[in-house]
Amino acid sequence: MIAISQKHWTGDVAELLRVGDGFVLDDVDPEDTPGYERSKKHAAEDLASGALQLDEYQERLYAQSRVDATRASVLLVLQAMDSAGKGGILRHVVGSVDPQGVSISAFKKPTDEERRHDFLWRVKRRAPEAGMIGVFDRSHYEDVLIGRVRELAPPDEIERRYGAIDRFEKRLTDAGTRIVKVMLHISRDEQKERLMRRLDRPDKHWKYNPGDVDERELWPKYMAAYQTVFERTSTAHAPWFVVPANRKWYARIAVQHLLLEALEDINPHWPAATYMVDAEKKRLAAS
Amino acid sequence: MIAISQKHWTGDVAELLRVGDGFVLDDVDPEDTPGYERSKKHAAEDLASGALQLDEYQERLYAQSRVDATRASVLLVLQAMDSAGKGGILRHVVGSVDPQGVSISAFKKPTDEERRHDFLWRVKRRAPEAGMIGVFDRSHYEDVLIGRVRELAPPDEIERRYGAIDRFEKRLTDAGTRIVKVMLHISRDEQKERLMRRLDRPDKHWKYNPGDVDERELWPKYMAAYQTVFERTSTAHAPWFVVPANRKWYARIAVQHLLLEALEDINPHWPAATYMVDAEKKRLAAS
Repeated sequence: MIAISQKHWTGDVAELLRVGDGFVLDDVDPEDTPGYERSKKHAAEDLASGALQLDEYQERLYAQSRVDATRASVLLVLQAMDSAGKGGILRHVVGSVDPQGVSISAFKKPTDEERRHDFLWRVKRRAPEAGMIGVFDRSHYEDVLIGRVRELAPPDEIERRYGAIDRFEKRLTDAGTRIVKVMLHISRDEQKERLMRRLDRPDKHWKYNPGDVDERELWPKYMAAYQTVFERTSTAHAPWFVVPANRKWYARIAVQHLLLEALEDINPHWPAATYMVDAEKKRLAAS
Repeated sequence: MIAISQKHWTGDVAELLRVGDGFVLDDVDPEDTPGYERSKKHAAEDLASGALQLDEYQERLYAQSRVDATRASVLLVLQAMDSAGKGGILRHVVGSVDPQGVSISAFKKPTDEERRHDFLWRVKRRAPEAGMIGVFDRSHYEDVLIGRVRELAPPDEIERRYGAIDRFEKRLTDAGTRIVKVMLHISRDEQKERLMRRLDRPDKHWKYNPGDVDERELWPKYMAAYQTVFERTSTAHAPWFVVPANRKWYARIAVQHLLLEALEDINPHWPAATYMVDAEKKRLAAS
């Protein structure tokens, strides 16, 4: 077993960030750094050392899936308001893992074909294979977030979806997938600053969309929709974690830590050879 | 335009490695380092500086595909005998790019469903989207390599496939994809050493398969099948590059350079804003 380095944490991060009974999103301060009292500079070092652990864990998981009958995988679900830092998580946390062991699925506005199916259809097809770390960049939760805020479906259909999501996630976890659901939580003011920086830099103009401002106007409605999501879908088998994200460096080490814990829970090990090692050495030497 | 750093190359790498008329695989020395006279230590530095260029190029390509009507993409096709270093290319060259901009497709033994379709069916579905670097870890070429050596299809079907591959690749390039086809070329002795190292290390046992030795026995037949592939499918629009790979560090900077040249050829630039920047700044400030 690889021991996850805990030395830089002052508390149980997963416990501090997990959405449990009585959780109130409004009470979370996006500037906060729960369980971490070191500086931004230290966070970069801690992220780098965590990356090595994550990489080895993932390779073990992958190796085991090729040889043993294990079906274990990890699924990171990333949800956030625009500019909250999903891309940075993908680049700096997920990007440190061997790309052969990662599958990223970005869920955008559904295509015509996707709309002709149940909302979970496109999501199920992207569930991670055994041995992989799957990442959902946005997810089925959009269908109860923008779906609710923008009234893209009737209320009873939105209502039905919470239960459908729960059953879907239960089946996935029963089949061996560890699900880590993360909302990156930034403040409305922080978003304004980040969007303004995009407008200030010509090489970032492509990341800005006038629709982003329209969505900002609906901020309180989105926060209410997230609160409902947390109340209805943070379960023992697929808990939500709300990660304060005004400080990008904190969000990155926190999400990395949640992934490390999921892998530690699987505890993958190098699989034993399924052949006679000495006999193969002789065959190979003679070849 | 980003200028690709050429300073560490003593020759035109793409030209040196490209399969042209009269190419003979047997004449390529897998120990060689064409166009590069610096040491392994320098190669690591050169790889790191190339990684920054590759990353920026890819982000520009991606950005442009989101905004402009460009359909440009890059497809890296990787073929090699076992242990030649495909995994290292994926980890150390492709892995340096933002994972959101990369799609890796590993083609293994076809499934029953895949076998019920034409050999190109599964491959076409994995062609890279605009803005992406797609990587084929093995490819449709297996169908004229192991397919030929192991006689998995009748000779006239194998014969038909060369033409089908050429037409498929022509359509892809016409639609905007730069195709870079790479064979990593190791010697039979080097393979033996690498397989032996896998047998020596318990954490590498999972990478070894007794079938690897059976394939080794067919080495001359595989080399002949590769020679035929090069003669039949190295075209102006989709050339083959044979990269000597006994020195892993050389293979990595060489493949990185081929990707950089493909991107330089596309010459992606940051797209202009499709909205009024100043007006948006005011809207955002007021939001």
